Amino acid sequence: MTEPFFTLRLDDDGVRILDQRCLPEAERYLLLRSAEEVARAIEDMAVRGAPAIGVAAAMGVAVELARSSDAELEAGLERACRRLAATRPTAVNLSWALTRVRERLAARIEAGVDPEALRREAREFARTLHAEDVATCRAIGEHGAPLVPEHARLLTHCNAGGLATAGYGTALGVVRSAAREGRIERVLAAETRPFLQGARLTTWELDRDGIPVTLITDSMPGSLMRAGEIDLVVVGADRIAANGDVANKIGTYPLALLAEFHGIPFYVAAPLSTVDLEMPDGDAIPIEQRDPAEVTCFAGRRISAPGVPALHPAFDVTPAAQVTAIITEAGVVRAPLAAGLRRQKSA
Amino acid sequence: MTEPFFTLRLDDDGVRILDQRCLPEAERYLLLRSAEEVARAIEDMAVRGAPAIGVAAAMGVAVELARSSDAELEAGLERACRRLAATRPTAVNLSWALTRVRERLAARIEAGVDPEALRREAREFARTLHAEDVATCRAIGEHGAPLVPEHARLLTHCNAGGLATAGYGTALGVVRSAAREGRIERVLAAETRPFLQGARLTTWELDRDGIPVTLITDSMPGSLMRAGEIDLVVVGADRIAANGDVANKIGTYPLALLAEFHGIPFYVAAPLSTVDLEMPDGDAIPIEQRDPAEVTCFAGRRISAPGVPALHPAFDVTPAAQVTAIITEAGVVRAPLAAGLRRQKSA
Repeated sequence: MTEPFFTLRLDDDGVRILDQRCLPEAERYLLLRSAEEVARAIEDMAVRGAPAIGVAAAMGVAVELARSSDAELEAGLERACRRLAATRPTAVNLSWALTRVRERLAARIEAGVDPEALRREAREFARTLHAEDVATCRAIGEHGAPLVPEHARLLTHCNAGGLATAGYGTALGVVRSAAREGRIERVLAAETRPFLQGARLTTWELDRDGIPVTLITDSMPGSLMRAGEIDLVVVGADRIAANGDVANKIGTYPLALLAEFHGIPFYVAAPLSTVDLEMPDGDAIPIEQRDPAEVTCFAGRRISAPGVPALHPAFDVTPAAQVTAIITEAGVVRAPLAAGLRRQKSA
Repeated sequence: MTEPFFTLRLDDDGVRILDQRCLPEAERYLLLRSAEEVARAIEDMAVRGAPAIGVAAAMGVAVELARSSDAELEAGLERACRRLAATRPTAVNLSWALTRVRERLAARIEAGVDPEALRREAREFARTLHAEDVATCRAIGEHGAPLVPEHARLLTHCNAGGLATAGYGTALGVVRSAAREGRIERVLAAETRPFLQGARLTTWELDRDGIPVTLITDSMPGSLMRAGEIDLVVVGADRIAANGDVANKIGTYPLALLAEFHGIPFYVAAPLSTVDLEMPDGDAIPIEQRDPAEVTCFAGRRISAPGVPALHPAFDVTPAAQVTAIITEAGVVRAPLAAGLRRQKSA
């Protein structure tokens, strides 16, 4: 019997996060006591996944206020929000969560709330966000499950699971809900180089839940689709533009094209907080360029000739035209995606 | 000044091969003294690449005859050919080379040639095959170079280079010839999981030749193509069916589809010995399934949850419809590929 795990949690002494860099080898939790420590954990990908880093950022604000003196509360709030917002540019959930927490707490400061109440509100807000995220993921799962056929062989990329959210997952929320209804024959997890979130995280969390999962490399989906061995693709998202273009982990776009060519549905599962109506289309979404050393080195070993450069865009953009539907907590949005997303966001 | 390297060589004391499993960290040569040792080096991918393993097999026969007593020569020839042919099923160059050496030497035995002359002929045959392969690659390079535009940003997959052949390379032969004419801006080398031939071998051999090369993961070509940063794709082949379907390293097929979608030419560079007219189409080509542990482990570390299965097809099939042209030592074959390949093979 394995203990249940949690992705992140706001405790009285700080933010506890499961250090995802150590999975699947070790299940280690970090205790983070300042916004700076939370920011570094996000930058270094100890915690990752668009919804999870949004919640982590709100928790980072709470722990920063907890350590700030009464006189420094307002400055601490500003500093924490600025630092946390600068960690990763692509996932919009981060700025979405930080904007909410900042506006709310700034209004309370304005209203002259006492320092201890402000600190308490920051904690409560972070915990509410955490709980909301789990509920959102469950709703995504419920809406998405009917899209999964019987005996489904479902391909997913990266990790849009419980580890990428406060719990349950977006793409893997759909998997979990469909699995409960007995409709998952197996999940194919693309390993997702260079960070191997598919190999390290998706296989780990699905295997824990007893959902059959098979690991493949990122280069295998094409021939598996051609052989009729994939029924649908479900992935998460880091930011969805107003027109329905989807920024997600590098390698998502080719999967969408391959799915279209082979007549396989391609679904994106994400909370509405991932939808950014201020981005007209995907080309406007900032794509994080990470350290090329994450591509040229693995487990401390160099895998390419010394001095040879590497590229490391962490995300790509899948045009709305290649997206069969977007599954949010409010339901399933089909083409035209722009109208459906606008309707859901304004509801 | 770095020493020149060689992929494999038949010396008087055995077959010397560059152990490609150690690259790029170390340049180590193995000395192989029997067909069994050569067979294991092929199975374990110390030497790999369709043309290279064909030449290695012929060398394996030569060293086996060198160690066989006069009375055992015929049995040794049969045993060596059988063992070597069983190493890897997809690359047809292996059985092509072995069929040639076996027929030739069996005829000499039949004709009553003396044992020492037979051993010498086996050595000469292997060395001739080696020299022919280099000449073939140079011809492929010359035919392919005019297809490469000025300032080309050329994507390749796996390693179809000097390390995959007796020297110069097929896809990288095209690169080398085009680079000599100053037309390569840079080569994008897809790392090619799980064995990382692109990362470990292609960056190493191109960097040695002073040809600009940039490493990417297998999931990046899609977005690079969409951004207009790839002008053409050139890959090698392990077997080409009569209709022009191409079996090559897993991940080749998706690149061909992505290239087609983005209007980018997709070229296959391979010797005519890779063309197997006895295979009507790609579906008839046997696809090697390798040990899943090569996917789940890296550098001795497990990268996925224990007990989770993995798939490891080593090759995929690209339909002729997605191949812009095939570049052989006899010239450039365009659609209809079937007719052109038949013509070249029978010339």
